[in-house]
Formats: sequence, C-alpha cells, structure tokens
Amino acid sequence: MWFNRRMDTSLLPFFQPKGVVVIGASTSAEKLGYGVARNLIQSGYPGAIHFVSQKPGELFGRPLHTDLARVPDPVDLAVLIVPPHATPQAIEQCGRRGIRAAVIVSSGFRETGAEGAALEQTCLETARAHGVRLLGPNCIGVIDTHLPLDTTFLQPPMPSPGGIGFVSHSGAFAASIVDWARGEGFGFSQIVSLGNQADVNETDMLAVLAEDPHTKVVALYMESVSNGRRFVETARQVSRRKPVIALKVGRFAAGQKAAASHTGALAASDTAFDAAFAKAGVLRADTAEQMFDWARALENCPLPHGKRIAILTNAGGPGVIAADSLETNDLAPAQLTESTLKALSAILPPSASLHNPVDMLASASPQTYADCLRLLLADPSVDAALVILPPPPMFKAEEVAEKLIEVIRQFDKPVVVSLMGSALIEEANKTFRDAGVPTYPFPERAVSALSALHRRAQFLRRDDIPETPVPASLPPLSNPEELLTAYGIVTAPLELAHNVEEAVAIANELGYPIVMKIASPDISHKSDVGGVMLNIKDASSLSSGYAQIVQRVKAAAPHARIEGVYLQRQIPAGQEVIAGMVRDPQFGPLMMFGSGGVEVEGLKDVAFALAPLNQAEAEEMIRKTWAGKKLSGFRSIPPADEGAVIEVLVQLSRLAVENEFVDEIEINPLRVLEKGAIAVDVRMKTR
Amino acid sequence: MWFNRRMDTSLLPFFQPKGVVVIGASTSAEKLGYGVARNLIQSGYPGAIHFVSQKPGELFGRPLHTDLARVPDPVDLAVLIVPPHATPQAIEQCGRRGIRAAVIVSSGFRETGAEGAALEQTCLETARAHGVRLLGPNCIGVIDTHLPLDTTFLQPPMPSPGGIGFVSHSGAFAASIVDWARGEGFGFSQIVSLGNQADVNETDMLAVLAEDPHTKVVALYMESVSNGRRFVETARQVSRRKPVIALKVGRFAAGQKAAASHTGALAASDTAFDAAFAKAGVLRADTAEQMFDWARALENCPLPHGKRIAILTNAGGPGVIAADSLETNDLAPAQLTESTLKALSAILPPSASLHNPVDMLASASPQTYADCLRLLLADPSVDAALVILPPPPMFKAEEVAEKLIEVIRQFDKPVVVSLMGSALIEEANKTFRDAGVPTYPFPERAVSALSALHRRAQFLRRDDIPETPVPASLPPLSNPEELLTAYGIVTAPLELAHNVEEAVAIANELGYPIVMKIASPDISHKSDVGGVMLNIKDASSLSSGYAQIVQRVKAAAPHARIEGVYLQRQIPAGQEVIAGMVRDPQFGPLMMFGSGGVEVEGLKDVAFALAPLNQAEAEEMIRKTWAGKKLSGFRSIPPADEGAVIEVLVQLSRLAVENEFVDEIEINPLRVLEKGAIAVDVRMKTR
Repeated sequence: MWFNRRMDTSLLPFFQPKGVVVIGASTSAEKLGYGVARNLIQSGYPGAIHFVSQKPGELFGRPLHTDLARVPDPVDLAVLIVPPHATPQAIEQCGRRGIRAAVIVSSGFRETGAEGAALEQTCLETARAHGVRLLGPNCIGVIDTHLPLDTTFLQPPMPSPGGIGFVSHSGAFAASIVDWARGEGFGFSQIVSLGNQADVNETDMLAVLAEDPHTKVVALYMESVSNGRRFVETARQVSRRKPVIALKVGRFAAGQKAAASHTGALAASDTAFDAAFAKAGVLRADTAEQMFDWARALENCPLPHGKRIAILTNAGGPGVIAADSLETNDLAPAQLTESTLKALSAILPPSASLHNPVDMLASASPQTYADCLRLLLADPSVDAALVILPPPPMFKAEEVAEKLIEVIRQFDKPVVVSLMGSALIEEANKTFRDAGVPTYPFPERAVSALSALHRRAQFLRRDDIPETPVPASLPPLSNPEELLTAYGIVTAPLELAHNVEEAVAIANELGYPIVMKIASPDISHKSDVGGVMLNIKDASSLSSGYAQIVQRVKAAAPHARIEGVYLQRQIPAGQEVIAGMVRDPQFGPLMMFGSGGVEVEGLKDVAFALAPLNQAEAEEMIRKTWAGKKLSGFRSIPPADEGAVIEVLVQLSRLAVENEFVDEIEINPLRVLEKGAIAVDVRMKTR
Repeated sequence: MWFNRRMDTSLLPFFQPKGVVVIGASTSAEKLGYGVARNLIQSGYPGAIHFVSQKPGELFGRPLHTDLARVPDPVDLAVLIVPPHATPQAIEQCGRRGIRAAVIVSSGFRETGAEGAALEQTCLETARAHGVRLLGPNCIGVIDTHLPLDTTFLQPPMPSPGGIGFVSHSGAFAASIVDWARGEGFGFSQIVSLGNQADVNETDMLAVLAEDPHTKVVALYMESVSNGRRFVETARQVSRRKPVIALKVGRFAAGQKAAASHTGALAASDTAFDAAFAKAGVLRADTAEQMFDWARALENCPLPHGKRIAILTNAGGPGVIAADSLETNDLAPAQLTESTLKALSAILPPSASLHNPVDMLASASPQTYADCLRLLLADPSVDAALVILPPPPMFKAEEVAEKLIEVIRQFDKPVVVSLMGSALIEEANKTFRDAGVPTYPFPERAVSALSALHRRAQFLRRDDIPETPVPASLPPLSNPEELLTAYGIVTAPLELAHNVEEAVAIANELGYPIVMKIASPDISHKSDVGGVMLNIKDASSLSSGYAQIVQRVKAAAPHARIEGVYLQRQIPAGQEVIAGMVRDPQFGPLMMFGSGGVEVEGLKDVAFALAPLNQAEAEEMIRKTWAGKKLSGFRSIPPADEGAVIEVLVQLSRLAVENEFVDEIEINPLRVLEKGAIAVDVRMKTR
C-alpha cells in the first residue's frame, strides 16, 4: 500500500482496487465496453475482474452478470459504460454494492449543454449520497503500468512501465501521447484522464501521484484549474518532493474583463497561471514535446550542482548549436581546469578543439568518447555534460553508446545525449534508453532538458518560502491612502483647502516644503494657467502664494470655477516605478511591479507574482524588470532605495490578501528616493 | 541543362558532370576512398565513372588507373581523397587533364592551424592557375538525387528525391540530417557540403541551387558568411523566386568589439545576421527541426492569401493547443461565414463545436473529416487549414488520410496535418507523404509551418524594394552636425560665446527663442548652480540674462572657471527617440531606431535593419518599437511627426552608405515635434 501521507484515501480504489467491474461490458468488438474489458484482461491486472451486461453470456472466458448486486467479492472499482441517463442509477447501484469508486467513460454530460450538465450534477449528488468517488464523466480512465491496471479502451499494448505520472484534462491528448511515447521509447507509471471532473480533479490526482513510489515526475496537461489556490498549495507541497511539469493550454483565452488599472490591463488571462506555477515550483512547458523531453531527464538524471555544462562532440557544427542553446537556456559553458585540458590534449589529435565545446573530430572512437567524457565529469568545474553523437563515420553508434554508459554510471552528474539521425542510431538509442540515459534528436532539445534539471535543482536549493501568516482582518478602509498607511506604505495625500486659513492649517499638518495646485473642475492643464506652485517653504510664502495663484488662474481662465487649492507635501526627486495588484478569479491577488508612468502599457517592463509575497519573492520580481535593475543606479541615474520597494510590495501583497473587498489597487508612480519610497498617486477599485 | 541565368557556369561540373574520377579510390571497405567509389556506383550516376589509385587493380568491376592522365574521356569532375600534402599536385594534374572541378574530401588544412592554412592557400593558387574550381577541403561533397549523383562516403542508401536543396557548412551536420530525414520520411534535391570553402562558398552554391529546377526551397546551415554584402544581394534575388531558409548558428559568438555608442552596445554580434536575412527575404529558423518543418511546407503547399486559419479537430485539447499557437505565430483564427457554420451543423452532432477550432468530437468518421474540410476550404474567409488527427478511436487514421487527400487536391489552399501518435498513425503518415501533404507530430509545429507559408506569401506580396542608388561620394565632413545637415537632417548645434557681444551675434544667427547654458569645465550639473536659462526671446533679454547667469554661477560656484555660455536654439517639447548606425564588418551599416535617452541599453526598445533603408523599411523598423508606436500618440502623449523620423532614418542610412569613414553615428535624442524632428545631440566615431 503506497498511500501514506496527507492524501485522500477515498481515491485509493482508483489505483489499488481489489476487484474491478466493467458495467456495460460488450461482446461486440467495436463497442467501448468491449475495449475496456479487453484492456483490463490484457493488462495483467492481478485483482478480480467482473463484467456486467444487459444480456447474460460470457466474455473472455468470464461470465456476463446482468445484476451488479450478484457480482461476487472482491469489487471496489467500477468502470461505467452506460448511456448518460442510466448513469445515476448505475452509480447508486455501485454504492449499494459497496463500490467506492467509479470511472464514468460515457460522454453526453456537461460538454453537451445545460441538460447534460444537470445530469452530471445528478450523478455527483447520487455519488455523494452513496459514498462513491467519481472519475469523469467523458474520460478514458486510468492506467497503472506497475500494478498493472488498464481501465481504458485504448488500442493495446499498454504503454511500457516508466517513472512519468501523467494527468490529462484531454482524453484524446492522452491517447495521442501514449502512442507517441511508444515511438519515442519512453514509458509511464500512471496515466489519468480526468474528463469533465464532476468530482475528482487535477489537484486531487496530483496529490495521489505524489505518493506513488513508481512516479518519479508528474506531467500535467491542463486546460483550466478547478480551484486555483488549492492547486497552488498542493503543487507547492508536491514539488518539494517530486518534479511537477505542466503544459497549460488556452493561453489566449478570450473574455478578459475590462480592467480599471494598468495592472489589470497588462495581466493577460494567462499571467496568473505563470505566477501560480512559479509560486508552486511547477515547471511550465511550452509544448508537449518539451514537457516530455524534460520529464525524461528529470526521471532519469541526478540533479546538477550548478549550471556549468561540458559539451562533448565529434563535429563542430552541432557543438556550436549546443553552445548557442546554453545561452538561451540560462546555462553556462564550463571553463575546464588546466589539468583537464592537459589530459584531453594527451588523448586527442592536435587539431581537436579542447576548449568547451570539446570537439574530438570525426575520427573519435568509442574509447575516445568514453575517455573524454570521464575527464569532463571528473572535472570539478563541470556540473553536467551533453554528449553529441551524430552517426560516427568510422564506428557504430551503439559501440559509442555502450562505452559512454559505463562512464555515466560512475558519476553522480547528469549526462544527456544528442543522438542525431535515424536508422544509423536506432540501436544506440535502444542501448541508451535501457540504461536510463535520455537522448534527444537535436542539441537544442538536449540543452533544454539540462536546463529543466538546473531549474529543478535551483528550486530545491532555495529555502521553502513560508506563506505570510494572514492575521485577523482589519476594518475595511475605503480611502486608498488610509489603507496604504495602515500597511506602513508612505503616501503623499493631496488635500483640498477652500481658503487660505485652511491651507495654512493643512500645510502645518503635512509639513513643509509644500506644493500647491489650483482646484478647479474646469482646468485640466493646471500649469498652463499658472495654477501650480512648487517648493513653498513656510506659512508666509503659502499665504502670499495662495493669493497669487488664485489671481493668476482668474486672469488666465476667467470662467473657471475655483474650489480652492490642493496641497501636497513636496516629494524629492527619485526614480518612479509602478506597484499594483489585480485580483485573479482563480488564484487571488496577482501583484505587478515595473516601469511606471503613463507608458506602462506600451513599455511592458513589468513582472507578476502571486500574493502573498515575502521579501525574497518581491526582490526576484524587482530584478526581472529594467525598472528594478535601475534601482541600483545606472550611468547618470543615482541609485534608489530598493529595500523600500521590496517593503512596499510585501505590504501591498498583505493588504491584498487581507482586504478581499479591494479588487484592484495601483500605486503609479511610487517615487523611490535615496531613502524610502512614497506612493504619489494611488488608484483603487473595490467590490 | 538547367543553368541559364546569372549563374557562374564554372560551377556546372559539380552538378552536371559528364564523367567523374575518384582520385584515391580504395579497395579497403573501411577507407573513405572505398565509400566514395561505392556511393558513386550505387547512386546510379549515368555519366562515366573512373577510379585512380596508387596500385593498379579493379574496384566494382572497373579498372584502377594509376595515372590520371590515362583516364579516358569524358571526365570533368574529380573527387580527391589524397593526403593533404599531395593535394596541390593532384589539383595540378586535374587541371592538366582538363578537369574543371574538384571536391577535396581530405581534412588536414586550415582547420588544423597555420601550416594547414598555408597548404590550403597553395591548393587554391594551384587551382586558380589551372582553371579548376574547388569544393572543400574537409567536406563530404555533393549529392544530387535527381541526376542522380553521390560523391560522398555516407552510409547508403542515398536520401530520397525531393524538392529541398540543402547547403551546409558542417559535413557532420549534413550527415545527421540525411539520416534523420530518412526517419522523418522526406527527401532532398541537392545536398552540398562546403567544408573549409577555400574557393566555392555558400553564396556561390545558393546561386546555383536557385537555378536547379528540382529545388523548390533552399535550406542553408550557416556557421558564418563569406562576404556579407554579396550574400545579401544574391539571397535577395534568389528569394524572389524560391524560398530560402537559414539556420545560422554561433548566435553568441564572443569577441564583440567595445562599442562607442548605445547602437554599438546593443547590436549583438548576431543582430546583423537578423537584419541581413530580413533584407534578403530569407526566413531564419531557430532550430534544425524548424528549418525542415518549414521547408516541407514550402516545398509542398500553395501559399495562402492571408493569415486566417481554420482548425479542424476530433478532440478539444489539441485544438486549443493549435489556437494558442496561431496567436504566438502571428496568425489568426478564421471567422467562419454563417453558411459554413450552417452546413457544418448539418453534418456534425449537436454537441460538436462549430466555431473555429471546429471540434467534430471523437466519433468523426473519415467522411466527416473530408466533408468538414471541404466546407472549410470552400469558405472565402479561410486562407489555410490545419487538420488535427490523433489516432481516431473508431477508425483507421489512414482511411481518414485518404479521404482528406481527395479534398486537399481540389483546392488551391495550403493544408497541413498534425498527425499525433506513432504506431497507430504510421500508415496514415506514409499516405500523406506520398500525396505531398506535410504532417507534424504536434499542432505547434504544424502551425509554425503555416506561419512560414504566410511569411513567405507576405514577402512576395510586398514590392521588391529597390536599393537606394549610391551617388558619388561627398567630400568628407568631420563635424557630425555638418554631416547631418548635408543630408537634410535638422540639428540643434550648441555654440560657444565667450562674451555678451558674441552671444548676441550667435543668437541672431540661430534665431530666437534661445537657450543659454554656462560653459565651464568644472560644472557638470549646470542647473544646480543656476547655469541654465530657457526661453530667451530677444537680444535685450539675452544681454541681461548673460550677466545674470554668470553672476549666479559665480555666487554658487566661486572657484569654477567660466569660459562663456553655450547658446542653442530652443527646441519645442516633443517625443524623444534614438537613431543610430554601427558599421558591421560583414554586412556594412546597421541602422538602429528606438527609445532614446540614457536608459536605451536598459529598456532595449530598439529595432535594427541593414542600410540602405527606403521609406517602407524605415517605417517597418519604427513600428517594431514602442518608441515608434508612440509617435501616433498614446493617452496624454500627443502624436509626433512619424514622417520626419522616417526621413531621418532614410537619410542617416544614406549618410552611412556614402561615408565609409563614419564607423558609428548616433542621434540621441532625436526630438520629434508635431512637425519635423531635430537631432539634439549627435555622437560620431570615425576611422
């Protein structure tokens, strides 16, 4: 029994059933109910197998029961292939028979419209009432290659056993991947097709796969998320123990709501997923090919201690391609030590290139490949190696493979192979696969796999970031300045004075120097009419200034209504940035930082992260943008207080977590001084 | 004879030899001289085949001659596999025998160091003296699948015939690709391995392949360029007639020289290649896989008239992946017409999704696939289609393939297929390939191929941009302002006045309003000491201002040396951009445009293009940047004179072409007004 920690044991029968019944088994080879029965038998499932059908008879030498109640023990998992309208009753019968889990293969539910959705809801309610967990409907079920168990109707054979657990929102996609993987030569531990997720969803299954001892890495194909916050929490825990890779599609889903701030406008519908995966330590792949390229490396290779890669090749061109890829994948070429270079030069012909990429030339024998790789892996300045193996002109590729594998086994450093070609490297490919050495047809893909190993190692080296504790919520403050002030963020409020006495009183409150601006609903460009006065240093200048400004504006705009003046503490010069939050419906508060001002949306120099932020996360966000890098100073731009910006972001994220009525909030600009940072202008949108 | 236009007929014997002699043929199976002889025979080459060896004897039923002079006619191409030091003599003998072309397979030349380079030079000189063209040394020669001819020593069989001409700087890379292509099931027209390019280079071969009637698309694997300007000119001509795709490696080559300007600092060593490919209409691929994914589509498909793509699928997941990819590849989902939607709904089940992507559901039969595709291709709002075909649960994929092919043949619109899986789609894959329908294992790669077709179509729709004629060069002007002025670019020169009389005289020259700034080597922040005075409107304000500014500075900085004042015509407010040029050693003047100011290098909001620029090219460059987009106005930022910026870029590029002594020139900022643009600050670096 491999279930132990934190997992929902009610999901146990999906993976470790004592007996499985196929409800809707069929003797017609073209029916799904036949395919499921066939796969269950052919999979070699060691538990009891039962068939239920409307007509009595026999299938694969087993009786076709017409009544589920008559099916003998043990039986705890049902696979339902019955018409949609008959499904609720079948679920009820499962419950009465003591079956605790059911896979609903049939379609015709929520995906077909309102009527189907109602039927699906009935299924769920029936299941809850009778203590049955549901997978599906509209799914292809579960495959466990190690138990083994296959509840799908996919064309046999079952995928080969492996260490990749694969959870998919799309059954067709899973089916394609199973067939494609066969051609690529890799296997799976578990495959779960989720279908409509009436009950069990991707997060539930992620938690289950985390406990499976055969699953070394989890690959998720996601079209949506059922509960964003719960997914992040679960994935965050799982990813500390096992690598999780996600392919999230629907990046450009339409229907983004109109945004009230720059932050809202820039946060595309998919940005929150990026931030969520980052927070949860989930590696996000761009393509299916990439997801499984990474998964194969993470399944088989030890993690590197750093990002210094040695490239070993028998041809210059592919070596250059690999070196280019290091750069685009945030890896670095290892600088080989003098003793390694010396030892290489003793083995290699004089015109070989010793400096990484090490080009042994086309004449390199299997022994030369092995000897060079040994030298590279023994070099303390090498964290991982990429071996490039085009069809060698004078040797067989499989001979090279065998020699290399001996060396790879002696070291605890990751080695991936770019095995280029097809017919000429087929044998070598099998040899590498049997030895658990991942191969890729081109150097770029091999380097991308190394980068996944590196990112995984980096993630594990980082301290687990504790969630900021959420204290009891504060009384809601509807004024943005007051709210920011409550979180220790310094603001520069603009206060209205209706006459000179009020102005002096307000100025005494705010402190000098003061800026004064005319308050008129009819004037948009205040400085054009002499309506702005800077650097007012005391009460007497303020009094005389008040009269002056009103007089100037009256002269320039005789018909404008004048309400008084706005007073604001004069803020010293500094760098200006933007800090904002928009509440994502799935993942909650999504924080933004970057280059502020009016051009925010044009420059797009912004970074996003999920709240709450701790200091390290806020710092990482800042460093991703030019606005953030510039805080350390640049040419004639003096440095500004990065620490103050970090504090503002951390506090703004707390504010967002603790004040659910705030839908969007944006400080633009946040003026960052030599010491401190001041929210000059704040916008807030509340529910 | 397929050579007709503009090509160098001396290269003819490499591709259409009447007779080939292998010099260094060997009877030992492990020798290259055996492999070359074997391939030449096995290729089915229809011309005469001769062997020369040191020892007499027989090979493949043909005599081994010991003397080249005794080899009978016809013979016009030699393949040399002789030791490096014996190569010059062999070339000389070729010349004396009347052989006009030689492939030098042997290595041990320039790639091994100075001595080898000298030997290579001797080979070249000998070849020139005796009228022999050389391919290599250190190359694997030429394959023509249609003639057929194979001068390589690669493991047979020869690649299958196809329409892709492939020119490679790396022999090993070409060898891998030949084997890989076999597995992928596509063929080639010509394969040329260039080796050290002592004589014939990639540009020569590009011109040759342009004339080959079997070559529908040219794929270039490039590690460098022999002559940048010549490459651009040749590729520009070729690409009007045939698609050219390049994979240029060495993107991050070290050794970039220290730059004197932002333009120089931002122009990475590879930027010029990007600009050169853009100018030449060459599609630049990121990976080898991508290059051939594109090549297969360009070889087989008609070009689309627009970018509106219909996606036809039997599963939602892969449809979403495809839709995402449209977005990242600058394509758009077609908005199907009402009549198409109506016709689709008559065919498909009620829960199918009619709106593009059209999801027919898993039950879709071969006939349904065909009927839907016919409706989509007949829709005038569809420019191209992607069909997604995971292994269909109830049918054979090859049956779907056959039905689809019938439809594809009836329309002149490109259709690509994402055929997902491996064993279950093998037959379908062959069926599609035989019909010339490109297939890809994942939707992302299929969409990328469609985008290559779209970009090719866009390129051909654009008018061929004539090169700006280069007039007789002007007398060199070493003052940047004078130089810009000579090209009609308005500058705002800063002129030094040593006293008030000089100031008034200069101001009369420049015109009012005037800005005055203190001229002192000891003061860096002029405004801090009251050393700047704006908006001086007449001579009397200037006179009083002069005294005032000097007095203020003397009070604030008593020890500063004062040389007088700088005068500059006051420039109205406007948008500020950067326009620059850095001379690339390979491709000549490389132009830059983007966001200016001190933060240029941080914001990296810049675009590059190769000079000379015409108006359309300058406009395209501008539109690629935020700085350029902003010229049309944005929120509170008023629009500025884009036309004036275009004119500055065009003229600056002319300046660059016509004044070779200018190594770098940069206008930062170029102030763009409501009408006109003024170069406020100019830097220039000359030879």
